[in-house]
Amino acid sequence: MWGSCSLACRPLADPALLQSLAQPAQTKLVLLVLDGLGGMPRAAGGPTELEAASTPNLDRLAAEGQAGLSQPIGLGITPGSGPGHLALFGYDPVASNIGRGALSALGLGLRLDAGDLGVRLNFCTLDDQGNVADRRAGRIETRANQELVAKLNELEVAGVELEFATESQHRAVLIIRGAYLSPAVQETDPQAVGVPPLEPEPLTATAQHTSAVLRLVSEAVRDCIGRESPANFVLMRGYAGLPELQGLNSLYGLQPVCLATYPMYKGLARVAGMAVVDGLDTADEQMAAVAEVWEEYDYFFIHHKAPDARGEDGDFDAKAAAIEELDRRLPALLELGPDVLVVTGDHSTPSLLRQHSWHPVPCLFWGGCVLPDTVESFGERACGQGSLGVFPAQSIMGLMLAHGGRLQKFGA
Amino acid sequence: MWGSCSLACRPLADPALLQSLAQPAQTKLVLLVLDGLGGMPRAAGGPTELEAASTPNLDRLAAEGQAGLSQPIGLGITPGSGPGHLALFGYDPVASNIGRGALSALGLGLRLDAGDLGVRLNFCTLDDQGNVADRRAGRIETRANQELVAKLNELEVAGVELEFATESQHRAVLIIRGAYLSPAVQETDPQAVGVPPLEPEPLTATAQHTSAVLRLVSEAVRDCIGRESPANFVLMRGYAGLPELQGLNSLYGLQPVCLATYPMYKGLARVAGMAVVDGLDTADEQMAAVAEVWEEYDYFFIHHKAPDARGEDGDFDAKAAAIEELDRRLPALLELGPDVLVVTGDHSTPSLLRQHSWHPVPCLFWGGCVLPDTVESFGERACGQGSLGVFPAQSIMGLMLAHGGRLQKFGA
Repeated sequence: MWGSCSLACRPLADPALLQSLAQPAQTKLVLLVLDGLGGMPRAAGGPTELEAASTPNLDRLAAEGQAGLSQPIGLGITPGSGPGHLALFGYDPVASNIGRGALSALGLGLRLDAGDLGVRLNFCTLDDQGNVADRRAGRIETRANQELVAKLNELEVAGVELEFATESQHRAVLIIRGAYLSPAVQETDPQAVGVPPLEPEPLTATAQHTSAVLRLVSEAVRDCIGRESPANFVLMRGYAGLPELQGLNSLYGLQPVCLATYPMYKGLARVAGMAVVDGLDTADEQMAAVAEVWEEYDYFFIHHKAPDARGEDGDFDAKAAAIEELDRRLPALLELGPDVLVVTGDHSTPSLLRQHSWHPVPCLFWGGCVLPDTVESFGERACGQGSLGVFPAQSIMGLMLAHGGRLQKFGA
Repeated sequence: MWGSCSLACRPLADPALLQSLAQPAQTKLVLLVLDGLGGMPRAAGGPTELEAASTPNLDRLAAEGQAGLSQPIGLGITPGSGPGHLALFGYDPVASNIGRGALSALGLGLRLDAGDLGVRLNFCTLDDQGNVADRRAGRIETRANQELVAKLNELEVAGVELEFATESQHRAVLIIRGAYLSPAVQETDPQAVGVPPLEPEPLTATAQHTSAVLRLVSEAVRDCIGRESPANFVLMRGYAGLPELQGLNSLYGLQPVCLATYPMYKGLARVAGMAVVDGLDTADEQMAAVAEVWEEYDYFFIHHKAPDARGEDGDFDAKAAAIEELDRRLPALLELGPDVLVVTGDHSTPSLLRQHSWHPVPCLFWGGCVLPDTVESFGERACGQGSLGVFPAQSIMGLMLAHGGRLQKFGA
């Protein structure tokens, strides 16, 4: 199968173009994301985790539908979960990128609304002269972090609302809620010891208010925990708000819902305007919930973390087993009667590399209007023979809408 | 065969870049468009119309050349004939989109020049209070429409030239010729009965003159047919002029000609600056005409409507038969000695769906400089294995020019 080249294709994925063509329909669209699905062989000439896994249901869907390799951002670019998912939802992953502060907040399940500012914090140690002695306060225990955060959450700073939260060890997150907040502020980590923290200087004129707020916050933090040990101050970085994204209901008239277990993906789904089913902790609960809410919604984002987690563990067999376990859940999903089903990942996480990679991600597209290709199984090499070729993940939303009869013709 | 993903590649098809590289040559380029060529199986696991058709000539060309699937606009987008063809001629189908009013005029074979305004009309019935009683005048017969149009073509409005034409039943088209015309005017169909028609309000400052003209036209129409019955007025919509496109001769030094039977495609060809052979009613006449004009031109756009028409009829077998009939004409075409021959469609029209669809379109590229791929026959699944992959239709013009030796190298 030769290349699939989108040289001058106006991306289908352009939300504005799709929005102009959107029309209502009764069809049900399902996006099943196996996080970190793509992988690599552990030995030369061997199979990847997905190829090694026994996946009769995914293979059948690939045989009945069409397959390809989705590219979340671009050739060679390794995506974080944020852009990887935003692309799957049809947004430009580069233009809509969510900064670390906001993503950390979403990851902790904190409420982040338009206008709020997320800040990543490292608890640190200042010496008596006020210089940084340890940028990570000796990597305090998570429990010590939680105790400090409980104290900090008593703080009040005029004109804004503050919410501190523990991430883990020395890492925490601060959400500032107020007006006129800007992320264009200097990070305060001096990246060295024996010098004082940097000031949160404004980087643009519109960030002066935020800069002033952050100075007040720093003073308040110093007053609150300045006599603690070893962590007696915070370094601030990764300031970020939410991108201003038009939601999927507003764009395409969908009633979208997210069924995920990890806060990060629920947060991303909210950013895209999806409803979120809370309180799901296992795959069993997720699948039961899909059935429960099936009648209320028409776009279902179902997220499974296990392949990525096992990949980051470096555990090839456990990743393959996780994929097999998810394959067994497909018949129940199909019983509900989706009109369009896409199975892919937000990026690859080869257990060989123990982290996200840039390798394109196996993708299968199943539904009544799909022209079947010659692919007979679901795996990296098989998908490379598929009729979608290597294509932008951002195109998936438009294809789902088209196959679901939710797009008018363009032009006469 | 793996995919080739060119998310951020500078598009080959950009007319300005191609124009900067254009050089003369004696080669003959042929674009043979089988309208609505792509299709779908009528039964699971079965062939598409093209795959079912017996096409020994197309198969041989595919085997000798290279194949792929052309994407007129983008993944998932269903094209109308307008954008589908403009892409095949090398223009950006979205930026150059032709509005309904202009396309209807072209479809009727009316002359439309740059600056003219096309308007779609519905004959309607106003009651004695001047409210709309029937938005379609009871769907009058085409003959009644023609009689009204004959009356309206006597009208004169100062400063502009008017030409009315019957489309069918209650539908007609008006072309206004004059200076400073703009399509940015409100449509007058109130989309309801019991209320008066809307005014053709200007939507931008530059449309004020046009708005005034349309009011004068409305008054003149009222005076002319106001006492007729049931159709005594017109509702106006789909205002559109021609996009300002640089012609193919100006861009690339081609001497292009169109051999088509339907007015729409002749109109689109004129928009692209092609000469048009008029008076062709059958495929026999088209092929005879190609031979007659072979020495005068060097780019031949040959259009066959039958596959699309049979697809819209929902007639799988008739569509396959239409394709077989066109396949039999290829030896005569090849006898003329084209240097480059491209066979594709402007979009897919699966008989299963009875309308245009978003499925990419089989495309074969034949010529002396073409590197043959492994494709042995001409069909959707075979083309999916071709070396062009799934590629933008807009790239076809640049590839034809290249294979015709009509492009210089870019850069030193």
